[in-house]
Amino acid sequence: MEVFLAVATRIERIPPAEVRLAEDNAALLQAMGIAVIHLCGSPGAGKTSLLLRTIEGLSSRLRLGAIQASLSAAAEPGPLESLDTPLVQVNTGGQPRLDSSMLREALRELPLADIDLLLIEEIGTLTSIERSLGGNRHVVIASLPEGENCPLRYPEPFSLADAIVLNKLDLLPVLGFDRPRFERAVRRVNAEAPILELSCRTAQGLEAWERWLLEVVAPLRN
Amino acid sequence: MEVFLAVATRIERIPPAEVRLAEDNAALLQAMGIAVIHLCGSPGAGKTSLLLRTIEGLSSRLRLGAIQASLSAAAEPGPLESLDTPLVQVNTGGQPRLDSSMLREALRELPLADIDLLLIEEIGTLTSIERSLGGNRHVVIASLPEGENCPLRYPEPFSLADAIVLNKLDLLPVLGFDRPRFERAVRRVNAEAPILELSCRTAQGLEAWERWLLEVVAPLRN
Repeated sequence: MEVFLAVATRIERIPPAEVRLAEDNAALLQAMGIAVIHLCGSPGAGKTSLLLRTIEGLSSRLRLGAIQASLSAAAEPGPLESLDTPLVQVNTGGQPRLDSSMLREALRELPLADIDLLLIEEIGTLTSIERSLGGNRHVVIASLPEGENCPLRYPEPFSLADAIVLNKLDLLPVLGFDRPRFERAVRRVNAEAPILELSCRTAQGLEAWERWLLEVVAPLRN
Repeated sequence: MEVFLAVATRIERIPPAEVRLAEDNAALLQAMGIAVIHLCGSPGAGKTSLLLRTIEGLSSRLRLGAIQASLSAAAEPGPLESLDTPLVQVNTGGQPRLDSSMLREALRELPLADIDLLLIEEIGTLTSIERSLGGNRHVVIASLPEGENCPLRYPEPFSLADAIVLNKLDLLPVLGFDRPRFERAVRRVNAEAPILELSCRTAQGLEAWERWLLEVVAPLRN
């Protein structure tokens, strides 16, 4: 037996002050020539691992900075804290996403004149997407354990993404993930974004991800 | 380099009408002698698989009903739809959780007099927790790919849980998960909830989960 119930569609209202702050952030980042990658994904998808791999792979070619959001005070040191890359960790106090004022605060703590590419790691969720931070590319990181249909069950972040990373490719022999089925699911909500398959554990596929990042940064450096 | 920013703590205000509706739901479910399991977890943690396994394992011993929440209309039939168990699928229209009025609507569609245990599968997230649905036990399902520290990074659902399921135990040889470390992380936010390790894929550990459910239901059946 089965019954479907449809509930009224959510209406999102972004307060005007928040929109202005987002525009200010965007203008500041553009004026400084900084490319911004806004990375979201489920808990455990590999956001921090991808940041770590990206810093390892690109810090000799780009000047990087990072912002990491967390729901509460860090329980223990994270893997990025021992690196030389400027890092700001933002405790959102339980809010499931950064907002423009938190980003503004974080930007004040970073040496913006010395950054080409700013990597922002969001709180781990696919249900709450920040569109108004200002001036950034959205990247969603999914992973094999989340299943091929993840883009259909959580369509919003995938539909907004400029690139989609599929992580944990090293689990392919174990999990039997159907990659064409995942791609078809992505294409139902996003016609164009490249799908970058990789494994942060084995480093397989990281070159294509780095190339994509370098292409994002290139126009801002000229 | 590292900087910490702490942002003001979120204040949650549950509207009084919502509280009344939750109390009504709780009273109705109690009057009907129905136990309710409210299941949350990340995308891909195994919520639907656990529901499927639970229905397979317990439907000869308990009269079950199920509610599944999704963010948008189902893209394709799910695995529960072909079963005999009464099932209501609720499209939340983008909202990251069920609320009491959605639950009330769903309850109207279910044959409540014929249900001992109602299983509610939430939208997949660990950042947005519904406390006010009324009359239920909270279960969080985590899985090995989410890492040992997941309870510390997403403390709220773990702190509220009456039981914590650790799924995908079959990936232990591949992922090298440190189970005592996961348990220590849980205990920092939740002193008492049992941790039930299992694999929905291999069915390992499902007996302990079924025993826990039978213990939840038992007092209501007398």
